[in-house]
Amino acid sequence: MLRQRVLSSFHTNPLTRQIFKPSPLLRTLQKLNTRRASPSPLSNASLRTIPARSSPLPTPHSRASATIAPSNGSKTPKRSKVVRFVYKASAFCGFAGLTATGLVVAFFIYDASTYKEEAEKYDIGVSELALNPRRGGPKNLPIAEVLVDDEDGEEMLKQRDKPRLVVLGCGWGSVSLLKNINPDNYHITVVSPSNYFLYTPLLPSATVGTLELRSLVEPIRRITSRVKGHFLKANAEGVDFSAKLVEVSQTLPSGEVRRFYLPYDKLVIGVGSKTRTHGVEGLENVEFLKNVADARKIRSKVIECFERACLPSTTDEERRKLLSFVICGGGPTGVEFAAELFDMLNEDLTLVYPKILRNEVSVHVVQSRSHILNTYDEALSRYAEERFARDQVDVLTNARVSRIENDRVIFTQKEKGSGKVITKELPFGMCLWSTGVAQTDFAEHIASQLELQRNKHALETDSHLRLLGTPLGDVYAIGDCSTVQNNIASHITHFLRQIAWEKGADPEKLALDFGMWRNVATRVRKKFPQATDHLRRLDRLFEQYDVDKSGTLDFDELKELLSQIDSKLTSLPATAQRAHQQGQYLARKFNKLAQAAPGLAVNNVTDGDLDEAVYKGFEYKHFGSLAYIGNAAVFDLNGLSIGGGLIFVYLWRSVYFAQSVSLRTRMLLAMDWGKRALFGRGEIKFPFLCV
Amino acid sequence: MLRQRVLSSFHTNPLTRQIFKPSPLLRTLQKLNTRRASPSPLSNASLRTIPARSSPLPTPHSRASATIAPSNGSKTPKRSKVVRFVYKASAFCGFAGLTATGLVVAFFIYDASTYKEEAEKYDIGVSELALNPRRGGPKNLPIAEVLVDDEDGEEMLKQRDKPRLVVLGCGWGSVSLLKNINPDNYHITVVSPSNYFLYTPLLPSATVGTLELRSLVEPIRRITSRVKGHFLKANAEGVDFSAKLVEVSQTLPSGEVRRFYLPYDKLVIGVGSKTRTHGVEGLENVEFLKNVADARKIRSKVIECFERACLPSTTDEERRKLLSFVICGGGPTGVEFAAELFDMLNEDLTLVYPKILRNEVSVHVVQSRSHILNTYDEALSRYAEERFARDQVDVLTNARVSRIENDRVIFTQKEKGSGKVITKELPFGMCLWSTGVAQTDFAEHIASQLELQRNKHALETDSHLRLLGTPLGDVYAIGDCSTVQNNIASHITHFLRQIAWEKGADPEKLALDFGMWRNVATRVRKKFPQATDHLRRLDRLFEQYDVDKSGTLDFDELKELLSQIDSKLTSLPATAQRAHQQGQYLARKFNKLAQAAPGLAVNNVTDGDLDEAVYKGFEYKHFGSLAYIGNAAVFDLNGLSIGGGLIFVYLWRSVYFAQSVSLRTRMLLAMDWGKRALFGRGEIKFPFLCV
Repeated sequence: MLRQRVLSSFHTNPLTRQIFKPSPLLRTLQKLNTRRASPSPLSNASLRTIPARSSPLPTPHSRASATIAPSNGSKTPKRSKVVRFVYKASAFCGFAGLTATGLVVAFFIYDASTYKEEAEKYDIGVSELALNPRRGGPKNLPIAEVLVDDEDGEEMLKQRDKPRLVVLGCGWGSVSLLKNINPDNYHITVVSPSNYFLYTPLLPSATVGTLELRSLVEPIRRITSRVKGHFLKANAEGVDFSAKLVEVSQTLPSGEVRRFYLPYDKLVIGVGSKTRTHGVEGLENVEFLKNVADARKIRSKVIECFERACLPSTTDEERRKLLSFVICGGGPTGVEFAAELFDMLNEDLTLVYPKILRNEVSVHVVQSRSHILNTYDEALSRYAEERFARDQVDVLTNARVSRIENDRVIFTQKEKGSGKVITKELPFGMCLWSTGVAQTDFAEHIASQLELQRNKHALETDSHLRLLGTPLGDVYAIGDCSTVQNNIASHITHFLRQIAWEKGADPEKLALDFGMWRNVATRVRKKFPQATDHLRRLDRLFEQYDVDKSGTLDFDELKELLSQIDSKLTSLPATAQRAHQQGQYLARKFNKLAQAAPGLAVNNVTDGDLDEAVYKGFEYKHFGSLAYIGNAAVFDLNGLSIGGGLIFVYLWRSVYFAQSVSLRTRMLLAMDWGKRALFGRGEIKFPFLCV
Repeated sequence: MLRQRVLSSFHTNPLTRQIFKPSPLLRTLQKLNTRRASPSPLSNASLRTIPARSSPLPTPHSRASATIAPSNGSKTPKRSKVVRFVYKASAFCGFAGLTATGLVVAFFIYDASTYKEEAEKYDIGVSELALNPRRGGPKNLPIAEVLVDDEDGEEMLKQRDKPRLVVLGCGWGSVSLLKNINPDNYHITVVSPSNYFLYTPLLPSATVGTLELRSLVEPIRRITSRVKGHFLKANAEGVDFSAKLVEVSQTLPSGEVRRFYLPYDKLVIGVGSKTRTHGVEGLENVEFLKNVADARKIRSKVIECFERACLPSTTDEERRKLLSFVICGGGPTGVEFAAELFDMLNEDLTLVYPKILRNEVSVHVVQSRSHILNTYDEALSRYAEERFARDQVDVLTNARVSRIENDRVIFTQKEKGSGKVITKELPFGMCLWSTGVAQTDFAEHIASQLELQRNKHALETDSHLRLLGTPLGDVYAIGDCSTVQNNIASHITHFLRQIAWEKGADPEKLALDFGMWRNVATRVRKKFPQATDHLRRLDRLFEQYDVDKSGTLDFDELKELLSQIDSKLTSLPATAQRAHQQGQYLARKFNKLAQAAPGLAVNNVTDGDLDEAVYKGFEYKHFGSLAYIGNAAVFDLNGLSIGGGLIFVYLWRSVYFAQSVSLRTRMLLAMDWGKRALFGRGEIKFPFLCV
């Protein structure tokens, strides 16, 4: 009562009101205060006497003192702090507890909502053509014009009559195409023998159990569902370019092979590569590292070696052989696998296996060149080699594998001093073969059909990624199976003649001044985007190649200039990075083409170089390379070469983390790295390695 | 300055000090207040005028007003709330942010500490005998008296001369033995062809991807390391009971089989069981569900069926066949698998596969008895059957499989009305066979060696779990491979004669009064603990079997009584629960035996029934059975039968969660169930199913 009177008198003064409105916290403290204070007659008395004097005269004085000395009312300052701390801590704990409980309850409620009580059945129309496709084409096979899920709801129905885009393969190129293409433009079908996308750069980590394989894998059906597309788990066997049909095969468990045709308007070939054998015999004794099954096989083979090495019936020599792990190939895959394997041996296996095993373990990298990571900056190669030397990973450079027996690698190596070639052998318990890529059978078959395809290692495309030798705008090739023709030189004559004719001059008598050269350079850049880097200092190039200092470039001088630039261009690397960029490029171009289609239809433009008309050529941007080398990592970022310990390992991880394919895989990756820290690879890995 | 003076004058009054000590928060508010207030000349002026009046006279008045009306100084009450809320919210966010950052930084620091920079090598002594074991035994094989890790550090060295306990198998029984045994008492070696313990009750869940297989698996080496034991991944082939040697074999990749002997002082046989075939032919066409590889095979087979069903070259009839999943066996495994499979089909696969597939999917359970879950309470069987009927899981009871062809099950079924037996067939895409357990080859081989072993289905032990026919205290058998001989009747004559002799009477003339009967019952309970339940109401039994109402039981009456009890005992179920209890029992007994050993040695007691002397017989306690039946679960808890929807599913989960083998697996299980809620089975499952 008394207090209320004081408050009401306060409220008559607007200024007081704004300043002295008690906060909820303070009100609580006040209550505590009065309760605690009451046992003391003195404080009680003083409290009672206050209002008598203050209420009639709420002076600015009371305001000031209030701002200066609010109370919380315990008996000594020391205890007051403790009490306050306990009070606050309990409040905090209580709050945290309530929040946690609330979250758990909310989770269970949400979880309960994710179960379907009733079995669902749909009324779905399936076209008769989907169930019984008509036969046709050169081989009179069924033609899959309609698929069984073409009428699964309105969304799918809308897609049915759109241009058919068929994508072969589901690697980096195809997936980046699918992730960037506008779902409204095409009826998309993906054909691939495997139904998942694999995040290949982290495969070596998954092999030794640092990561779960599952964290690197994304079901392709989830990716196609974004574009309301279709997926067929089958093999592409061949293409009929004139009838626009892909021949697809399915092998039944009984061994019977069934074939059918899949019609396309646009076909994208992204079938990847297979492992390069270099003509070495005995590869049935080694492991490859291309897919999830390979990784699993390597896992169990490594653990099998360890288990066998523990048995009393294993001799000393056998034990050393079982624990010798050989990696043929010193590229990024080989090096990262060696590093991860060594980490596992060093950090985890020693915890549970007999200690003698650790002493007899050896890891060897057999590299044909003079350095490992030879596509990287030399400083980085050296750093990696030093790191490996310290870790007792044995690096054998200039070593060429001649054949592989069931338990040993036979190789020749140049002696450092004499240069003499000596044949050596290396026994192994497990040997990994990772020595680059070669063309798949399908790509080889396609290439053999087309006259213009002369490259033995990959399908050649123009700078618009169109497969050479096929009708313009029908067939594209991306990723490891393809190479962009950068042979400017072979086109130069044709190109120069065109320029000369445009200038109205005889090619032989052509004379370009600097202004004209600049125009030509622009056109070269457009046609051969990879050359852009080499066409930066036009004035210098002009000076340098204007041999006769005439102030103009004649035909021969220009030819020489372009040939020189051409020679500087190398073919694109067979990396995830390149495939990813090509997929993205195609998606963007296909989006543009679809946008332009109505306009072109109105103008009756159906032929001609539509790609060229709507979009620029493909230009590869190299963002750099990176590699994990055993509790250290190296980065080769277009000239900037850096490498180092753990901090770079975290950097290396964050790059892959950011590039990872979906939120799900990103979460899983973070969890995996966390689990490695908490439980070690061992805890996580053995279960899988065991099986 | 002014404020300080006010404060110091306050501090002269001790009472004021305790009550008005400004809190840090208030001091901040004061600062805010003065800053905000200063632009107003009025408030400035009033502030300046205050001290002149208040400082010389710090009356109780100021105290009271302070407790009543502290300030926070914004201009209107409304804004003040907003400002305060923003202030507090920012403080809270800031605090949360800082905490989170701190945790992340701490994690990274911890993580960084888990990497080993240097390669470690140890100076480890390995005994020559471990590397080159001496030969001997009946087959003159190497005898593994010393293992390669027997000298790995002091801890291991201490174990070397302890009694040798060899455990065959690493299932529920062996693992519960290893988890409960005192590490100081024995030199333990585990021999098993698989190097992991599998949490079998959740295997059906893992098969369809609700759980990760990895979450159910615990590396056996982690379990043996607790007891400073050893693990050999090899097969047990036979036992020489007189020389106390286990014959162990290892198969090399080349196919060569190497054998060696492992000596033991105590041998525990826990080799488990294999699937029962019931003499049905064509089982090469079906899947089993015993281990991780099986689960993985089923996963990929189910997905392969779905993928094939999508292809245009698949006919309508084939599609229905591919999507027909048949489960032979209506026990807990079969029922839970059917439920989980149906959940997956209903909740997840429809999201990514063409909808027509959902309509053509069918799940069938073929059960030879009249109900599924026939070992459970009848009400629960009925509940499960109703649930399945609603879910359109087809339950075929009284159906006996006669043979299995490559794509269909041929079975006979009694017609409900006529009782006529009709032969039917059921085409399938995938068929699971889970119809009970049978003896392994090893157990069969052991049984054939021992005259006393007459049970065709399992190794017989006495109530101390000692393998019948082997020297007392040498060999034990636990888990599915064993059965505890509960044939009281066959021992009765011997037993009764013993009692009679002790009473100094001719057995034929024995007459037990109630007091004597009570003593006999106690001894029966001790020898046959399973009979305890049936020996509760001794007075009633006495009355009931005292046929001639003589007030005493004679020999024949007693014999009849015990035979009746014997007939009520059934053999123990082949469950994880039983194996777990047996392992625990053996561990406890072995601990007791080791404790008693010094005393016995002093008294020169080396022979005789030591087990009987130190520990009671094994007594199985049935805690109940439970089963998941598709978004519902049933519990059969010794008479209490309950079942129902989601809440029981959570209960079902928590039982298994609590029983799970380690903290790691428990965390992983929780994460798996969480992930199922967040991403569905699909997200998690497909990646693995794909591969």
